Amino acid sequence: MESKSNKPLVVTVRSKDRGGLVADISKVIAGAKGNILDVGQHSDVETGIFGCRIEVEPDINRPKLISKMKLMEEGDKSIQWNLYEPGEIPKIVIACSTTQHCLIDLLSRIAIGELECEVVGVVSDRIDCDETAGRFNIPFTYIPVGDNRESQEERFAEFLNTSNGDLVVLARYMRILPSTVCEDWSGKMINIHHSFLPAFVGANPYRRAHERGVKLIGATAHYVTAELDAGPIIVQEVEGVSHRDSLDDLVRRGADIERRTLSEAVRLHLEHRVMVFGNRTCIFD
Amino acid sequence: MESKSNKPLVVTVRSKDRGGLVADISKVIAGAKGNILDVGQHSDVETGIFGCRIEVEPDINRPKLISKMKLMEEGDKSIQWNLYEPGEIPKIVIACSTTQHCLIDLLSRIAIGELECEVVGVVSDRIDCDETAGRFNIPFTYIPVGDNRESQEERFAEFLNTSNGDLVVLARYMRILPSTVCEDWSGKMINIHHSFLPAFVGANPYRRAHERGVKLIGATAHYVTAELDAGPIIVQEVEGVSHRDSLDDLVRRGADIERRTLSEAVRLHLEHRVMVFGNRTCIFD
Amino acid sequence: MESKSNKPLVVTVRSKDRGGLVADISKVIAGAKGNILDVGQHSDVETGIFGCRIEVEPDINRPKLISKMKLMEEGDKSIQWNLYEPGEIPKIVIACSTTQHCLIDLLSRIAIGELECEVVGVVSDRIDCDETAGRFNIPFTYIPVGDNRESQEERFAEFLNTSNGDLVVLARYMRILPSTVCEDWSGKMINIHHSFLPAFVGANPYRRAHERGVKLIGATAHYVTAELDAGPIIVQEVEGVSHRDSLDDLVRRGADIERRTLSEAVRLHLEHRVMVFGNRTCIFD
Amino acid sequence: MESKSNKPLVVTVRSKDRGGLVADISKVIAGAKGNILDVGQHSDVETGIFGCRIEVEPDINRPKLISKMKLMEEGDKSIQWNLYEPGEIPKIVIACSTTQHCLIDLLSRIAIGELECEVVGVVSDRIDCDETAGRFNIPFTYIPVGDNRESQEERFAEFLNTSNGDLVVLARYMRILPSTVCEDWSGKMINIHHSFLPAFVGANPYRRAHERGVKLIGATAHYVTAELDAGPIIVQEVEGVSHRDSLDDLVRRGADIERRTLSEAVRLHLEHRVMVFGNRTCIFD
Repeated sequence: MESKSNKPLVVTVRSKDRGGLVADISKVIAGAKGNILDVGQHSDVETGIFGCRIEVEPDINRPKLISKMKLMEEGDKSIQWNLYEPGEIPKIVIACSTTQHCLIDLLSRIAIGELECEVVGVVSDRIDCDETAGRFNIPFTYIPVGDNRESQEERFAEFLNTSNGDLVVLARYMRILPSTVCEDWSGKMINIHHSFLPAFVGANPYRRAHERGVKLIGATAHYVTAELDAGPIIVQEVEGVSHRDSLDDLVRRGADIERRTLSEAVRLHLEHRVMVFGNRTCIFD
Repeated sequence: MESKSNKPLVVTVRSKDRGGLVADISKVIAGAKGNILDVGQHSDVETGIFGCRIEVEPDINRPKLISKMKLMEEGDKSIQWNLYEPGEIPKIVIACSTTQHCLIDLLSRIAIGELECEVVGVVSDRIDCDETAGRFNIPFTYIPVGDNRESQEERFAEFLNTSNGDLVVLARYMRILPSTVCEDWSGKMINIHHSFLPAFVGANPYRRAHERGVKLIGATAHYVTAELDAGPIIVQEVEGVSHRDSLDDLVRRGADIERRTLSEAVRLHLEHRVMVFGNRTCIFD
Repeated sequence: MESKSNKPLVVTVRSKDRGGLVADISKVIAGAKGNILDVGQHSDVETGIFGCRIEVEPDINRPKLISKMKLMEEGDKSIQWNLYEPGEIPKIVIACSTTQHCLIDLLSRIAIGELECEVVGVVSDRIDCDETAGRFNIPFTYIPVGDNRESQEERFAEFLNTSNGDLVVLARYMRILPSTVCEDWSGKMINIHHSFLPAFVGANPYRRAHERGVKLIGATAHYVTAELDAGPIIVQEVEGVSHRDSLDDLVRRGADIERRTLSEAVRLHLEHRVMVFGNRTCIFD
Repeated sequence: MESKSNKPLVVTVRSKDRGGLVADISKVIAGAKGNILDVGQHSDVETGIFGCRIEVEPDINRPKLISKMKLMEEGDKSIQWNLYEPGEIPKIVIACSTTQHCLIDLLSRIAIGELECEVVGVVSDRIDCDETAGRFNIPFTYIPVGDNRESQEERFAEFLNTSNGDLVVLARYMRILPSTVCEDWSGKMINIHHSFLPAFVGANPYRRAHERGVKLIGATAHYVTAELDAGPIIVQEVEGVSHRDSLDDLVRRGADIERRTLSEAVRLHLEHRVMVFGNRTCIFD
């Protein structure tokens, strides 16, 4: 919809919270002849951390901006900052198992430009999604478990590490990852869990939701951490259900919630709109 | 809105599921010259139980209806049935502690006729709600804990048992009830829990929701059973929240979800629209 | 998820409303040794019409069922009924213009079996969607307007009439159809309109929503009639928006609402769950 | 919940949009030894107006703050600003007709401190709400139409003008107001309309919603302007409905949407969280 040349430069900053930070950063940008298009900011009471995301018109004087940001950083060692150029297209890897709805939804959105990124590979422990990846001309890598779980985990980790990906999306990848993988990809690996966490952590959430007789079902997209289904939540959505809904109905309706929850989380991440404070996220929307 | 004389007679039936039940019941009603206004029915796959709720015009021949229902019952011992006359006004007891929003909401809706019932008493372990009960001319009974928890529980149970109430509503009553009370009032005691169960069972759900960084909060109205916050769910509602919401914001916004979730559950119960199958409810709406 | 052989036979019946209809139909099915799996029924007060949708196990005696339904029909000329065999795969045509999100979402869901139908063609007044259709190996027919609107309309109508399609889905096809086409495809043509009708009938609903400062946006899937955006509504969904949302944000967020609203409407239609009473629909869900 | 002494001072500023405004205002507050607790800001693209709402700890040096704000105002004539002291309790007037659910909900929330304001009077063209006002010890003024519509309008306007109210809430007041009243109370009079505007402007929205067969109903709280139901929207909410819902069901379910939509709009206004830009609102939440 928009041409790339009109897209803004994104600056993110996080630091120990103190008064006057927004004013200071605004001054830096003004000093580099930058025109601010949008500001999102948050002071997190629990962690005492300040974060902001600023969209700037792309004709800003970059060398000046960078030198002034470095100056600011020297004066306050707690400051961490990033520049994201409008032309940088992030690379993503998608992992999946047998269920295809999240995978095909992501690939479709990327194909029509709704999500701006390049899929460098689809990887799976099951053969099922091969055709779907092929439909979108994405290389598919099959890493089955066979009779050796640990070997599969090693090859999977190796695949990610050599993938050149900036982000890994677990689109209903149904294997628990070794904690080393979780740590290596901290803040860069998004999972979709098919329940409104923290309800129904772990396996078979729809079955357990049906048995508990809940009146709503949902999905949660979160960053992966070593503890199962316990990482920082990015997006959660739910819908009402009734006694008329069988377990199959929950699975079908849940699939629709999962796909839109996951794709929204991926979009927010790709646009640098998510900042993690402790185990919670701030969304600059 | 409607005059009482136009209100329907409600017939509920539950039995072991078998073919032709609706046809059989319809025939009984037709035989008593009854005109069916509305039918809700459900065959529960898990328990193998059939349930239905039928609204009939009130000019039906009652003796004939009753004798034919008894005949049906003799032919199938699994059948349980009830007639609810339009003129019967249920009596309810409301229990609360310090928080008043659910109490005042229920009393307001009853005062303007939105919920058709008579409140025979408000009971509390805290003195705070005295004035609110008085505003609606409802007797307030104060049963404090003092230095003897067990004595309080006994007097509370005694109060309910002598209250003449058909239904007990726990409108943010913050004490855990002895299991004998839960059993005595099985299917006749509704609690509001301030989370989307089964997430955040027990104390301080908003604090834990805030700490977990969830992106939605909710409330659950359920029948009370001996296991804490584990009874059959009647109504659940949620709303989205964000990192901008402090714990105080969650509490404030949650209060609004709680009041409408609880009042809706009470309405459904009073209109005989809830049927319990195992630990799940069917809502004839 | 389910194998085809387990799928039920669907029987739909509509007729003038009278007592005992469900009992009569149940008896017919029992007489053909059919086992009822699910019943949805509705008595429409405004039109005085009764409708029902019944799922029956597929091993029912069909000749007996058909002869008994015909008998019933002879006794009550207002009765209209249909049998839908589990093996009948409906054929659909999808029409679109420049916007691709609804098209690719439908094709994706059909490709992975979420929607059970066969797409016999994609037709468009614009060339944009050619690649997307090709990705799913669907023939694409380009019928541009050029300098003759009427000729385009004729060729478009001709295409539909010779398409062998059972259903036409207007997936953001941005042209107004001649009333003859609307009549020919009455009850068999679904459109997605990008607003919560009856708000913002016609062109540019997001722009007008933004200007009016509404706090929610939505989408409406409806059967097409000769009057613009005024046909029977099948599904409507909305989401909250805020002053932070620009017009581009509304368009982006609306796209997500549109795709799920349209695909849900198509699913309901394909499963014979929609019945039209006057200008309103009943959904047997 | 919070003691008054902890409540913040609220500063609102609006002006022509230009760079550096937030920085300038932050400096003014820092100069008066004020500690900023929360900042909401919006640059409205359509009108070119900037607005912000800042919460400051109440121990700020007020004379210094005021003198510096005046200085800023002199340098930029487009600046308009307000200070709201935590101790200032706004006064409100509530107007209603026969329907009581919005009135009793507002009075209940005010009685338990959820909405912080003082109700100086309830006024009505109908006698019905007398008892409800009395329950909360609020003076009730009855201004019937009788045989002279214009005289009623004059007395109603006179009542408002002499009421000492800061805000008028039309809680289902079913009369159209003369445009002079709308202008006198511009930005200080909130109405609840029982539809999701701009759908179903004017009378009988539920009936028309039922006839149109919509799949959702809603309510809209907005500032009153001379054009009927066309003023700036503050809050809108909707809920799904189905063919099972009769007109009476829509009315009942709508009542619940109306009350929470209206009370939320009143809360936002009382906390100075609403700013009007043209015919749209910005909500600092």
